[in-house]
Amino acid sequence: MDSQPLDSDPITGQKPSDHCAVIGVVGDTPVIDNIILGLRTLQHRGQESAGIAVYDGSIIKLKKGMGLVSEVFSHREQNLSGNFYGNVGIGHTRYSTQGSKNLENAGPFVVSSSTGYLAVSHNGEITNAETIREELKRKGSAFLTGSDTEAMLMEIARDVGELGIYPGLKIAMGKLRGSYSIALMINDTLYAIRDPNGFRPLVIGKVDNSYIVSSESCVFDVLGGEMIRDVRPGEVIEMTPKRYTTLFQIRPRRISHCMFEYVYFARPDSIIDNIEVFSTRIKLGKTLARESPVSADIVIPVPDSGRAQALGFAEESGIPYNEGLIKNRFSERTFIMPTQMERKTAVRLKLNPIRSVIEGKRVVLVDDSIVRGNTIKHIVSILRSHGAREVHVRVGSPPIIAPCYFGVDMKTKSEFIARSRSNESIREEIGSDSLAYLSIDGLVSAIGMEKDNLCLGCLTGKYPEPIPGQIKIRQSELENY
Amino acid sequence: MDSQPLDSDPITGQKPSDHCAVIGVVGDTPVIDNIILGLRTLQHRGQESAGIAVYDGSIIKLKKGMGLVSEVFSHREQNLSGNFYGNVGIGHTRYSTQGSKNLENAGPFVVSSSTGYLAVSHNGEITNAETIREELKRKGSAFLTGSDTEAMLMEIARDVGELGIYPGLKIAMGKLRGSYSIALMINDTLYAIRDPNGFRPLVIGKVDNSYIVSSESCVFDVLGGEMIRDVRPGEVIEMTPKRYTTLFQIRPRRISHCMFEYVYFARPDSIIDNIEVFSTRIKLGKTLARESPVSADIVIPVPDSGRAQALGFAEESGIPYNEGLIKNRFSERTFIMPTQMERKTAVRLKLNPIRSVIEGKRVVLVDDSIVRGNTIKHIVSILRSHGAREVHVRVGSPPIIAPCYFGVDMKTKSEFIARSRSNESIREEIGSDSLAYLSIDGLVSAIGMEKDNLCLGCLTGKYPEPIPGQIKIRQSELENY
Amino acid sequence: MDSQPLDSDPITGQKPSDHCAVIGVVGDTPVIDNIILGLRTLQHRGQESAGIAVYDGSIIKLKKGMGLVSEVFSHREQNLSGNFYGNVGIGHTRYSTQGSKNLENAGPFVVSSSTGYLAVSHNGEITNAETIREELKRKGSAFLTGSDTEAMLMEIARDVGELGIYPGLKIAMGKLRGSYSIALMINDTLYAIRDPNGFRPLVIGKVDNSYIVSSESCVFDVLGGEMIRDVRPGEVIEMTPKRYTTLFQIRPRRISHCMFEYVYFARPDSIIDNIEVFSTRIKLGKTLARESPVSADIVIPVPDSGRAQALGFAEESGIPYNEGLIKNRFSERTFIMPTQMERKTAVRLKLNPIRSVIEGKRVVLVDDSIVRGNTIKHIVSILRSHGAREVHVRVGSPPIIAPCYFGVDMKTKSEFIARSRSNESIREEIGSDSLAYLSIDGLVSAIGMEKDNLCLGCLTGKYPEPIPGQIKIRQSELENY
Amino acid sequence: MDSQPLDSDPITGQKPSDHCAVIGVVGDTPVIDNIILGLRTLQHRGQESAGIAVYDGSIIKLKKGMGLVSEVFSHREQNLSGNFYGNVGIGHTRYSTQGSKNLENAGPFVVSSSTGYLAVSHNGEITNAETIREELKRKGSAFLTGSDTEAMLMEIARDVGELGIYPGLKIAMGKLRGSYSIALMINDTLYAIRDPNGFRPLVIGKVDNSYIVSSESCVFDVLGGEMIRDVRPGEVIEMTPKRYTTLFQIRPRRISHCMFEYVYFARPDSIIDNIEVFSTRIKLGKTLARESPVSADIVIPVPDSGRAQALGFAEESGIPYNEGLIKNRFSERTFIMPTQMERKTAVRLKLNPIRSVIEGKRVVLVDDSIVRGNTIKHIVSILRSHGAREVHVRVGSPPIIAPCYFGVDMKTKSEFIARSRSNESIREEIGSDSLAYLSIDGLVSAIGMEKDNLCLGCLTGKYPEPIPGQIKIRQSELENY
Repeated sequence: MDSQPLDSDPITGQKPSDHCAVIGVVGDTPVIDNIILGLRTLQHRGQESAGIAVYDGSIIKLKKGMGLVSEVFSHREQNLSGNFYGNVGIGHTRYSTQGSKNLENAGPFVVSSSTGYLAVSHNGEITNAETIREELKRKGSAFLTGSDTEAMLMEIARDVGELGIYPGLKIAMGKLRGSYSIALMINDTLYAIRDPNGFRPLVIGKVDNSYIVSSESCVFDVLGGEMIRDVRPGEVIEMTPKRYTTLFQIRPRRISHCMFEYVYFARPDSIIDNIEVFSTRIKLGKTLARESPVSADIVIPVPDSGRAQALGFAEESGIPYNEGLIKNRFSERTFIMPTQMERKTAVRLKLNPIRSVIEGKRVVLVDDSIVRGNTIKHIVSILRSHGAREVHVRVGSPPIIAPCYFGVDMKTKSEFIARSRSNESIREEIGSDSLAYLSIDGLVSAIGMEKDNLCLGCLTGKYPEPIPGQIKIRQSELENY
Repeated sequence: MDSQPLDSDPITGQKPSDHCAVIGVVGDTPVIDNIILGLRTLQHRGQESAGIAVYDGSIIKLKKGMGLVSEVFSHREQNLSGNFYGNVGIGHTRYSTQGSKNLENAGPFVVSSSTGYLAVSHNGEITNAETIREELKRKGSAFLTGSDTEAMLMEIARDVGELGIYPGLKIAMGKLRGSYSIALMINDTLYAIRDPNGFRPLVIGKVDNSYIVSSESCVFDVLGGEMIRDVRPGEVIEMTPKRYTTLFQIRPRRISHCMFEYVYFARPDSIIDNIEVFSTRIKLGKTLARESPVSADIVIPVPDSGRAQALGFAEESGIPYNEGLIKNRFSERTFIMPTQMERKTAVRLKLNPIRSVIEGKRVVLVDDSIVRGNTIKHIVSILRSHGAREVHVRVGSPPIIAPCYFGVDMKTKSEFIARSRSNESIREEIGSDSLAYLSIDGLVSAIGMEKDNLCLGCLTGKYPEPIPGQIKIRQSELENY
Repeated sequence: MDSQPLDSDPITGQKPSDHCAVIGVVGDTPVIDNIILGLRTLQHRGQESAGIAVYDGSIIKLKKGMGLVSEVFSHREQNLSGNFYGNVGIGHTRYSTQGSKNLENAGPFVVSSSTGYLAVSHNGEITNAETIREELKRKGSAFLTGSDTEAMLMEIARDVGELGIYPGLKIAMGKLRGSYSIALMINDTLYAIRDPNGFRPLVIGKVDNSYIVSSESCVFDVLGGEMIRDVRPGEVIEMTPKRYTTLFQIRPRRISHCMFEYVYFARPDSIIDNIEVFSTRIKLGKTLARESPVSADIVIPVPDSGRAQALGFAEESGIPYNEGLIKNRFSERTFIMPTQMERKTAVRLKLNPIRSVIEGKRVVLVDDSIVRGNTIKHIVSILRSHGAREVHVRVGSPPIIAPCYFGVDMKTKSEFIARSRSNESIREEIGSDSLAYLSIDGLVSAIGMEKDNLCLGCLTGKYPEPIPGQIKIRQSELENY
Repeated sequence: MDSQPLDSDPITGQKPSDHCAVIGVVGDTPVIDNIILGLRTLQHRGQESAGIAVYDGSIIKLKKGMGLVSEVFSHREQNLSGNFYGNVGIGHTRYSTQGSKNLENAGPFVVSSSTGYLAVSHNGEITNAETIREELKRKGSAFLTGSDTEAMLMEIARDVGELGIYPGLKIAMGKLRGSYSIALMINDTLYAIRDPNGFRPLVIGKVDNSYIVSSESCVFDVLGGEMIRDVRPGEVIEMTPKRYTTLFQIRPRRISHCMFEYVYFARPDSIIDNIEVFSTRIKLGKTLARESPVSADIVIPVPDSGRAQALGFAEESGIPYNEGLIKNRFSERTFIMPTQMERKTAVRLKLNPIRSVIEGKRVVLVDDSIVRGNTIKHIVSILRSHGAREVHVRVGSPPIIAPCYFGVDMKTKSEFIARSRSNESIREEIGSDSLAYLSIDGLVSAIGMEKDNLCLGCLTGKYPEPIPGQIKIRQSELENY
């Protein structure tokens, strides 16, 4: 994906996405340290806000705030004090879209109900949240936020309250549509729940005497523990300090793992649904090299997102790999341009070429994906101005042509450079000597899953689940801006 | 009352009270300025947090934060921008108790329901909040906070959603017990609602083309408008830009206005239930002088709370009035003592005597009320050390011996110096030459209402409404700390 | 003085004044607590910034920040930690003028020189700071700020470094013109220094085993100690934990104590140059009543500044005293008006009348002084609108017609309502039925000093010291705005 | 260098270093935007504080604060407003050492003197600052901070004031010892000054109609301009909007460029003294491969610092390159460990291995340098626990055995793992199968300069300039802690 901070453009009026990280820990010692470390490990999945809820034996304590995990939970004493003293808890971070800087949608959400206290951290997007909310309103409920997570939690709280935990969760999951990988805490018990499609990743592991549910497996490495396995699509796992048990597994209508986790979102050191992300990215690059070879002197990545694919491309093609663009280490946080700086300057502030590496060379420039194309266009121009003889763009995934409704912040069709456009037209737009995307079949084979088990909605416009009309309408309105 | 910041002692573990200010404005121009000015006028009723909710034509926007009104709403541009652009809105401030510095219980509360948006600002305390919450939980609701105001609003939202506004509000008021003077906004309509006992004040007025509901009438003076009248006990008034209409009035079981509003809480320039606060306080002082005369050279108040009563005492007794204690103007905000300073230093930091006024004199020291007695004890000692020949303490209200369950932050019996104790024993404790409280009958006659129409619970231990056992139990537990 | 926050108008473009509080403590135990308490006691002399410097045995530690003392020094642990651990230290607060919110001019100032460390807290204004600065620049010095205090400290540091402490201080005082009451710390020794005119107050006292120098004597009361005496005009007192010694006293050209300290600035409970402020203010009111009697029903003060004068007026005239205006306790801090609110609303937000007190009455309204006259004008209007039959304004000091160059923030002549104007014209402007100021002779006799020993510059335009032309020029430029 | 945030250990009690970035811009349009962008480009040279000074036509305006450039200058309006409106200005960032979070030493420094306003941004360390300060004190100067930059600026201000700019600067440079690359502003003229040894880099360039002086050349790329050339050792360049002129050049005693700029500090895309940093690092890796070959399956870098050296090593050795360690993108900022986490967890939070890359492999692990060795030790251990068969550590620079006194934050000898220790002993300590550092001759030849023109003090303990005894003594005291 071309550079994240530049792509989250305020001009496009995107609504906040539900791209997030979730974690839950239950053990026989205080969990706060492991939750904070886990959230910091998962910080790449969301930088807008961070929150933690801990059950202290009688009630659930909650703190959330805007900013990085290390900013929100910066006071060591506070974290360790009675505030978050408890042996079971959950955490959440949220993706940042400029302009949506508010706490209303930050997680976790906590409620008290007839069952006691419920808290949830959610990664995904409930596509029928509006329907659920309206139905609950008709039954007399009222809502403090517009969040789909609040709607989900209220539905769960009601069903669990009426029917008990096992049947309540089953009924609730029968009603919920869309994507949800969640860590749910009901009083002192932790539940790992993944929607029947398995859109978003969710794994469980063990660290010392604690069981942990996490968005990604890299957490277990950092905490010095072991991954146990993925949560299966539709599965509900009950976790206590002593054991983890599958409460039930809803029979999946169909499995549809998000291919974009492998392409861009997940950390390279994570293993998702038994497939390691880094080596998959290497394979994406190799496959790309086979599908779209080019005669060139050097392969360079767009750092950091295109590095693994570039290494794969170089290895397969035999063209030497080098680092030709230096990334400003301090550009991770969304930044304010001092004036109406041209976008080109913004790109240069983030990425600057090494003249000695590219001067006079035929360069293969590899990135993982292209959304709007603004960034790649400027990189091509900068490479040329630093003496590159030819610039060949190779993209480690197929063209994105349709919105995601399952938890990725790509909503309006008009933002995609590849929408209704020929490859040649895009190449012209970005100004490269050649341009090639990976094919869908190449993507599928590199990942190594059944094609039917992947969600390719943003590449094909065909979704594994029907999308409610009202969401589509909202999208078409957005496009008319 | 002896000095407020010193009395809200963290050691006593008091729970946050529901003492608050409410305001609501509906008109044909943006209301944000009048709400902010109104809240600043009512700042004495609560300094912990401030919040405003405005209906902008389609949804209700909400902002609340910890601190004074001028701190939370300090950015002129933000306030005036689209954020709070609307012709109907409500505001709220909350009383500060040290240690409860969190936003969870700050007002207003806003929810979306089948009726649309509802927002409420609440002054008072719902005594059966726990019962209501449990019943709503049984019906499937879940709660995000432990606030009695959230419980009240959820009950109202459910009843109004099921039955419509008129019957819904009536049903809800039939269920609610305790004290509530509220500004309620349902979409673009404002409601002023006062509980059938009329515990807390609530008035309506007109400013230019806006109708306003407010905790106190001083708001209309400051905004340059006119008071219309008190909201009657049990009355629901619907307010639109064009008119105000009594929707209905629940027949009061009995009326029980809080006498403490006249003694201490309300601003002297307010008129509550047709009685002006300042002249009532003068009368309290006069009555006290008649009931407990003393031979002395000078009458001085504990500033600022005892000034009106001292003026009345002086006038009635013929003893000259003077200011003998200087109050530090910057001591209004809760303050941190640099070390474990003795309380006496804390009192001196707030109040310092004028030697020339008191040296060699027989001093009558007048305050409005005494709760714990810490402050008055130190003042007596300081006056003596500055040369007062005699110190006679006169208190403009009867001894407080029992908790308040209707919205005043006096909860644990053990905190009252006058609990189960003779006048002589108290006098000895505070070290004065004589001590006299106003009698209950003196209080009632000075206020000028029927005794049966006043709540005297904290003076007698006999409450106009039964107090649920669970609250009493909670209190007795608190006392065992 | 008519109400302070309203009078410090951003429109007038006033430069920051040097009105400040100073304190210094030396003892055999850590001084930080006493300095903080002392500064809080002196908070009325400056609310813009607060700072403390402590000598810890080898170096001087410094902390200063914008805001009230309780805000800048709010972290108990920080204050008590090694940061400010030392047995000698000084503190400073500074007056707030809107628009000058920066730290550059905040005190104390600290430098290292050939003598070691020097730190100074300054109340006053060096009228020849520019000359001193230029001369020092010619000698090779350079300056980090534009502050007159930095210039003074650099001069002292140079002279003391060259000549030693005793002769150095003497030489420096020979060069400095204007007003300076300072607490100076040279390594572990404290010096109390007052300019030869004695413009600003400065007193020494003893608290437990510590010697203290302070702007006002009320500090000794609050800390539980005793005042020793005023620092004499031109005197330099050396203070160590064991003793205080007069190092020398420069023979005063003439003494010229600021009369405004008695009228408005100082706390009523302070004693300045052997005269108690509160009883002086009572006398000002009495004298005023004798000079300008009026037939009326009631005397009311503008709270809080006019209260003592009103009490004196009432006592002398026999007209009953009452409180007819209620002051908003939370209006001490400079506040932002939500929109371009008319000034009348701003006044009402701060002061609101009690109708029962003034309706139908002939009212004598007493304030301590009038500068611009904006506030008093609106109060008169509000009193009339609440039913006052007549309003007679009585001012407890003579008309202010000229700038102060010795430490009071009144700089441009055009801001004074009384400048070049008849009493009748002012009365018309403020809309009262009658208006009377205290006479200069009345003021002098009430204070009880030799007329020649008072600075009456702002009342007469004749100053005890020549004012350098460049300052006058700057002033006349300001007036042309 | 092994990972920066982990190496700046609070336990070692390091004093704040003078490692910094400087920039100066002079042109015919406002310079604020270019200064901010330039500082953000140079952010890697200092993250503790940021500051900017702009000459607005009459005075120099200054703002500095703790934090990243984007944090200190985050308010677009403020930056663009009159505050920083001017066509000449300088900027500064400072390196962060935990525990020294204060503004006293932050740049730029600004003074007013007989010459007018002077402002300076400084990279380097004045070794005889104490001597200069004492001499100036003897001449009557006093100092507000303990900063060596203040001492330098005061010396310059005095000499320029007495003698004029040209001779003044010459005299001052004759007195100053140590390292200083500075941007100096005297009223509206900019000066680029580099010490005669040329320790730290300093370059000039042109962007549109502005001349710019900067610590590194990458700034010109980002701003879309061109580098002109390095400032020569001992050279003073005067810069105006129209031209740049060498005012004079002090004859260098000897040239001694810091070799560490090439190894670690500078951005890879910079060119320093005509040598590109990135390709130098590649050469360091190649030379290392030739000097210390090893039989292995894979070369991996410690990201990001060892990447270029690893690429060079791989290319020269023919062993395949791969990325085997994933760096947490959010670990750039110093972070608080939630508890007394073991250091190993801290390393894992920052770096996590890819199992598929290293399992069963003989790994060559390449970093640029080793200071304390804590981090590399844990990486070796983590690689082994993820299945590496062998781990061979190769370091792209020679062992560091002595402190730097010329601007790099390595002060106490006891912190260096390589101090007085055999290679075998170090290898044992870090637990690798083999360990090899680059030789000094290899370093010199890779850089491609005369050995005599490099400062190799930290590698040899022999410094190009004598180090004043008092600094050495301070160091030996530090070591006794």
